[in-house]
Amino acid sequence: MSSLTIHASSHDYEVIIEEGIRHELLNYIASDYRKVLVITDDKVSNIYLDDVVRGLGKELDVHTSIVPSGESSKSMRQYERLLDACVEVQLDRHSLILALGGGMIGDLVGFVASTYLRGIDFIQMPTTILAHDSSVGGKVAINHLKGKNLIGSFYNPVKVIYDTETLFTLPAEEIRSGYGEVIKHAFLSSEEWCSNLLQVSLDNISSEQIKDDLMKGIKVKAGIVESDEREKGIRRYLNLGHTLAHAVESELGYGKITHGEAVGIGLWFALRVSQRKLDASLPVDRYRDWLKSNHYPFDILKDLEVDTLLKRMKWDKKTVHQKINYVLLNQIGTPCVVELSDQEIQTDLNLFIKEVRAT
Amino acid sequence: MSSLTIHASSHDYEVIIEEGIRHELLNYIASDYRKVLVITDDKVSNIYLDDVVRGLGKELDVHTSIVPSGESSKSMRQYERLLDACVEVQLDRHSLILALGGGMIGDLVGFVASTYLRGIDFIQMPTTILAHDSSVGGKVAINHLKGKNLIGSFYNPVKVIYDTETLFTLPAEEIRSGYGEVIKHAFLSSEEWCSNLLQVSLDNISSEQIKDDLMKGIKVKAGIVESDEREKGIRRYLNLGHTLAHAVESELGYGKITHGEAVGIGLWFALRVSQRKLDASLPVDRYRDWLKSNHYPFDILKDLEVDTLLKRMKWDKKTVHQKINYVLLNQIGTPCVVELSDQEIQTDLNLFIKEVRAT
Repeated sequence: MSSLTIHASSHDYEVIIEEGIRHELLNYIASDYRKVLVITDDKVSNIYLDDVVRGLGKELDVHTSIVPSGESSKSMRQYERLLDACVEVQLDRHSLILALGGGMIGDLVGFVASTYLRGIDFIQMPTTILAHDSSVGGKVAINHLKGKNLIGSFYNPVKVIYDTETLFTLPAEEIRSGYGEVIKHAFLSSEEWCSNLLQVSLDNISSEQIKDDLMKGIKVKAGIVESDEREKGIRRYLNLGHTLAHAVESELGYGKITHGEAVGIGLWFALRVSQRKLDASLPVDRYRDWLKSNHYPFDILKDLEVDTLLKRMKWDKKTVHQKINYVLLNQIGTPCVVELSDQEIQTDLNLFIKEVRAT
Repeated sequence: MSSLTIHASSHDYEVIIEEGIRHELLNYIASDYRKVLVITDDKVSNIYLDDVVRGLGKELDVHTSIVPSGESSKSMRQYERLLDACVEVQLDRHSLILALGGGMIGDLVGFVASTYLRGIDFIQMPTTILAHDSSVGGKVAINHLKGKNLIGSFYNPVKVIYDTETLFTLPAEEIRSGYGEVIKHAFLSSEEWCSNLLQVSLDNISSEQIKDDLMKGIKVKAGIVESDEREKGIRRYLNLGHTLAHAVESELGYGKITHGEAVGIGLWFALRVSQRKLDASLPVDRYRDWLKSNHYPFDILKDLEVDTLLKRMKWDKKTVHQKINYVLLNQIGTPCVVELSDQEIQTDLNLFIKEVRAT
């Protein structure tokens, strides 16, 4: 069993990574809960919900609620519906909510837990690689029609329980998506880890390597959010690759590309801009080849308009007074935030789209 | 000018109490906001919104949004509508939301501010006496069909700006409502203040006394919430009088009786139970006479069923495992929490309704 303690401002919480842990869940949750509401999506529920309910034992009063899978469930409508479910089963301040699923579930359910009775305990049980990122750090949210994650809170789980067996059933695009954030964490922290990842083919990655990368990624994230929980400073580094990714996701319509794949592509752009603006020495060509050999779907960028993307990037909640603050790299492991003019971004985007078309 | 600093876990904030302060608001808010959204209700907006907008000066980009007055606006619907307004005027993390109004506005707008972009700055500008209670302590919320304040957060304002001139236009029932919480704060803290208040006629109370009582009440509340922000322990004392009050409010339907009047009546019941259960020596008869001479509408309790009230009291979010924890007084200034059986409450309620009928 691998485990790690995260020091949040509200409380410390443990991340536990282990194969098959869902079958013995009861050993990993505090004993004074009387009632548990497990919330999951309609894909995960088919495969793992029974295991989890059984894993909670017979003593607890366990209820379940299922939302449709997909980003479109991170909505005000599902938020309201889940609050109704909490009221319906009469969760009180001594109850527990268990979020079983990928990032969508973690974000949505975390937001429910953060606001039901002004906040009750919840546990993250991520079932994707991508969720190694979102399950740690306390950001929970739903989407607004005008943008991703515009409505939410900072609210930490009481525990993160990662059953790596649930990753075996992930489709290829979900592995790519997870590794978009994993490799971002590598670029933010370690040349050696980066080099190692750039030699990995996601088609035949071992479960040992996944477990190892998850722990490394979570450590990078934890180190940053522990010193800047509310994103006043260095937490913004975690947005590396995200400004373009969010623009692409919202321009295509959510669900057309996975979040992590978009981040993987956005990272490529951020590396190129880092080369141009900061004269950074970075393995961009190698990274581009890695994206290509691992089938990241950058083709869908070919038909996007530069002006439209720019507009989307400016209406991102990270913009301050309508200028774009971009996370770039001075070198691997040394991120920084740079304010870019519209003109610069336009030029860089034009060059980038040209490169994408040629790749 | 009276002022007081509240030490919350997230940050310190100042409460400023002063007549006419709305006309010079700009002097009291930080200078680095570019955009302000003032949210108020359709009663307050008629009287004070223009003053406030003018008071913010011409440099700031000021927007306004108005919700219908009354408790029914503390709803998911208005919450969503206000979030739309925030998005519409493109508030960012460096914008400010100003909540101008009574407790309903403070709670609703505070919840919006706590969840828009995971929390942006907001200022409370209370316009009722009752709101001296809700504007301090960081509890913000909206109602669910099944209960008051079931959905919310703990989120502190960056400042509380109390223009006591706005209290001059309050109708009699709003003064009674405010003094329901004021006298609760007195019973929680000081025999002398209690004695003084029990001699006050609300019909001709002076603005000096109101200002003085507001500051005293805020000090009591601040002292308690500073040591227990999340209501794990002593903050529950602030619920003195509230268990019955909430039951009465929800049974009658929100808006039939003001919150503070219900608290004033609930306090009467809590004092009687304290006498019976704890043999506490308390001026209950004098308090009953004070309620009567100040026209608290306890008549509406006469037709309520004891069993229905009991049921409502048990489905209150403060119940743990379906038993009722009641805040009682050992003496003035010495509250405690006591678990009461259904049988005890039934007996006490029967006696109480009898007393109400005879008063």
